Amino acid sequence: MGKYFSFRSLSVVCLILAFFIITPDSGFAASREYYAGKPVKYVFLFIGDGMALPQRMAAAQFTGRQLLINKFKVQGITRTRANNRFITGSAAAATALANGVKTNINYVGVDPAGRALKSVALLAKEKGRKVGIVTSVSIDHATPAGFYAHIPNRREYYRIGWEMAHSNLDYFAGGGFKDPDGREIKNPHGNLYKIAAENGFKLVDTRQALEKLKPGSGKVFAYNNFLTEEAAMPYSIDKKKTDISLAEFTRQGIRLLDNPEGFFMMVEGGKIDWACHANDGVVAIRETIAFDNAVRAAYKFAEKHPKDTLIIVTGDHETGGMSLGFAGTHYDTFFNLLQNQKISFKKFTDKVLQQYRKDHPAAADYAKFKPIITRYFGLKFTGDPKLDRMVLTADQQLDLKAAYDRALKDKNGTVLLDGKYDPVTVEITHILNNKAGMAWTSYSHTGVPVLTTAYGVGAGIFAGAYENSDIAKKIMSVMGVKPEVHYMNRKAAAAAQ
Amino acid sequence: MGKYFSFRSLSVVCLILAFFIITPDSGFAASREYYAGKPVKYVFLFIGDGMALPQRMAAAQFTGRQLLINKFKVQGITRTRANNRFITGSAAAATALANGVKTNINYVGVDPAGRALKSVALLAKEKGRKVGIVTSVSIDHATPAGFYAHIPNRREYYRIGWEMAHSNLDYFAGGGFKDPDGREIKNPHGNLYKIAAENGFKLVDTRQALEKLKPGSGKVFAYNNFLTEEAAMPYSIDKKKTDISLAEFTRQGIRLLDNPEGFFMMVEGGKIDWACHANDGVVAIRETIAFDNAVRAAYKFAEKHPKDTLIIVTGDHETGGMSLGFAGTHYDTFFNLLQNQKISFKKFTDKVLQQYRKDHPAAADYAKFKPIITRYFGLKFTGDPKLDRMVLTADQQLDLKAAYDRALKDKNGTVLLDGKYDPVTVEITHILNNKAGMAWTSYSHTGVPVLTTAYGVGAGIFAGAYENSDIAKKIMSVMGVKPEVHYMNRKAAAAAQ
Repeated sequence: MGKYFSFRSLSVVCLILAFFIITPDSGFAASREYYAGKPVKYVFLFIGDGMALPQRMAAAQFTGRQLLINKFKVQGITRTRANNRFITGSAAAATALANGVKTNINYVGVDPAGRALKSVALLAKEKGRKVGIVTSVSIDHATPAGFYAHIPNRREYYRIGWEMAHSNLDYFAGGGFKDPDGREIKNPHGNLYKIAAENGFKLVDTRQALEKLKPGSGKVFAYNNFLTEEAAMPYSIDKKKTDISLAEFTRQGIRLLDNPEGFFMMVEGGKIDWACHANDGVVAIRETIAFDNAVRAAYKFAEKHPKDTLIIVTGDHETGGMSLGFAGTHYDTFFNLLQNQKISFKKFTDKVLQQYRKDHPAAADYAKFKPIITRYFGLKFTGDPKLDRMVLTADQQLDLKAAYDRALKDKNGTVLLDGKYDPVTVEITHILNNKAGMAWTSYSHTGVPVLTTAYGVGAGIFAGAYENSDIAKKIMSVMGVKPEVHYMNRKAAAAAQ
Repeated sequence: MGKYFSFRSLSVVCLILAFFIITPDSGFAASREYYAGKPVKYVFLFIGDGMALPQRMAAAQFTGRQLLINKFKVQGITRTRANNRFITGSAAAATALANGVKTNINYVGVDPAGRALKSVALLAKEKGRKVGIVTSVSIDHATPAGFYAHIPNRREYYRIGWEMAHSNLDYFAGGGFKDPDGREIKNPHGNLYKIAAENGFKLVDTRQALEKLKPGSGKVFAYNNFLTEEAAMPYSIDKKKTDISLAEFTRQGIRLLDNPEGFFMMVEGGKIDWACHANDGVVAIRETIAFDNAVRAAYKFAEKHPKDTLIIVTGDHETGGMSLGFAGTHYDTFFNLLQNQKISFKKFTDKVLQQYRKDHPAAADYAKFKPIITRYFGLKFTGDPKLDRMVLTADQQLDLKAAYDRALKDKNGTVLLDGKYDPVTVEITHILNNKAGMAWTSYSHTGVPVLTTAYGVGAGIFAGAYENSDIAKKIMSVMGVKPEVHYMNRKAAAAAQ
């Protein structure tokens, strides 16, 4: 009789289970949005900043193989709209992805009324997990900040860094502080690296030091020895051997965070966005590949812990209006041509162009500039474009010369195009991209939804179409936290009712 | 005891069921690709030609509400690559969607070796279902042709039409024959409308005649009374009251096809693509909305037959590199401005511009042309662009005048831009689109994957990421046909092994 009942109850549970699982497939019922099983021990959230379908597909075309992030069976469409603008920004998007709230442009970790939110990172910490935040840009940048800071202005880097330095999260890695000494505010409280160290963070900036750290020996802030002027890691195309990659920071994070209570880890590929802002397709692709390699580190870990790991890969928005098709190449694409680029737009503008101008103060010596373009981008000034696709057409030569002349007009060596970029560098990457069959419509973000892919336990809830704010709630459910908006204090929570 | 066993066996079946259903969600096993239940009686496949994520999202932004096609819970990413080119064409894409084979560019219903394939439409017919093929372009166009014809050249319209006229499918509707008298081939066999009638098709071309038809009274070929020069239905923005809409053709098809054995119906929104080729965002959006309305007709039917209906909505490729973000508008969008356009690019070029040139044979009378632009597109030549977004900026005025001058150079009144479009019309739609925050990178197709959404019984198998050729096989499984490539004859099947 006891046996009888156990089977009966099993079958009833099973039928209920089957109902909930089968129903969504019919499309007639609401899709199963949240996870109701045993909390998943290891949860990874990978965010490709500025990475949507075109970026993922371009990288796959470039490498000639599908990226790991594109191969995950569970795929969803994520809408990105902010509370007060159709085209979102990284701060509002990060706040949605981390806290489950659509907020205003430039708000970090606060709702539209300015109330501080409790992110999935902080909720994970409350649940006894360890938490890691990794990014290829500065650690106080909008995307990582959305997981630990609460400030309605993403540009207040010192204040954001201050929150990070006082954080109880376990592992910060990648870039450094953008305004460590508070030069942009009135009364800074001292150097943030020093404050972080005082608050228990072990600071390491070399591969050797990072690899020597032992799990369980306290909070860590690991950043690359060489950081760019914006405190970001260098672009992977410009990376030296001593530079620590995003994949290494991820792998070391996994090693340090692994513990019986599990962990939550957010890893951002932050410079995909920067490359797309500048319309540098090759760098965007290489950053996406570096990001894919970081996901690969988590995937290797998941293979060892298949019953305990979930990996989510999403983007915060599309940047640049990247398209895999250009008017001039019609139906053709030649992604192999992109291999000719050897340097990022940024390093080319800041180092190569600057040096050239120093060497040629009289300027206007365009003939001497041509071989530099050929060296770094493979574009050729002589030959037949019909026989060699890297040869510039007459039109392209004119456009390039015009951009060169525009650049010379500015005393500092750069006339700003769209407020930011050196015209000759932009012209070069545009021409190379167009030759390959890639094109752009904007230097800003766009409003197309992004692709979310997922792998592992509970991945199924990331299929379908949903808002970016739903991702935070789905993650909460996976970690055994109630999938709703959580505030930092009760008053705010009450006011929000 | 009998009860005991029944519960046990139920629980075992249930556990096995749960295993297969839960496993794919983990992401560690292969996703359940095919449907194994009782064949679904009513199957709809809607194809938005040239419709990918940007087109779907632009239409939603324009209307201010989400489209029905975007609201379906089951969403998947569909890759579109052709056998011999990364950026596909409508023929290769239709062949993949209809027959499950990646074939060469311009091939219709044949594999890369030229072997004739058996489409889901023909397989449905074999299974005793009725079949409908509906399109807003000519009935012999690549997309519908992929479902019934077998010719390695999509441009052979007469031969394709010949196959249609001899088809045993039940309902063809929308556009007409593009080359009914075989003017483009050597030995035509007579007028295709006549041949279709001789082969048992009832031909109707008015709403009244179509509505009068009774179910079960034989094969029908219904086309709109007024067809454009390419034998397509008019753009919905140019539609007169007497014109039959895509939604009406769909609704009437459902009425005529409904029978105890069920049906398969393919409906194409073919002119989304044409509008995107011309970079006319407003017309692309309005065609997408007309397409959504056609899906709505199927949805209404599905609501009445919830246990027997599946609706799949996909695209064959993206066209134009449409983006919801433009360099000039940065992070802003103003989709409401698009409401100002009152005419399609096509009608404007063919009717309005032609008339203007007749009225002003001396030409160069640009001042008289300005009010025409204002009338049809709302763009204003005087005022302050900062106060009124519809006022053309100085740069836009110059661009428009230059395009006007280019257009006048040609004796026929049009200088062809990219081989096809009137420069002044393209300039107008570009300017209006850009003002709204939309932009384009190409006049051709692009390589970004498309979105597939699904609703109804078996919809779940359309989640995830897959190739366009997988869609045909998934549909086969839903209709109780083995999900594999089917050839028209055994020899071809054997040769393919």
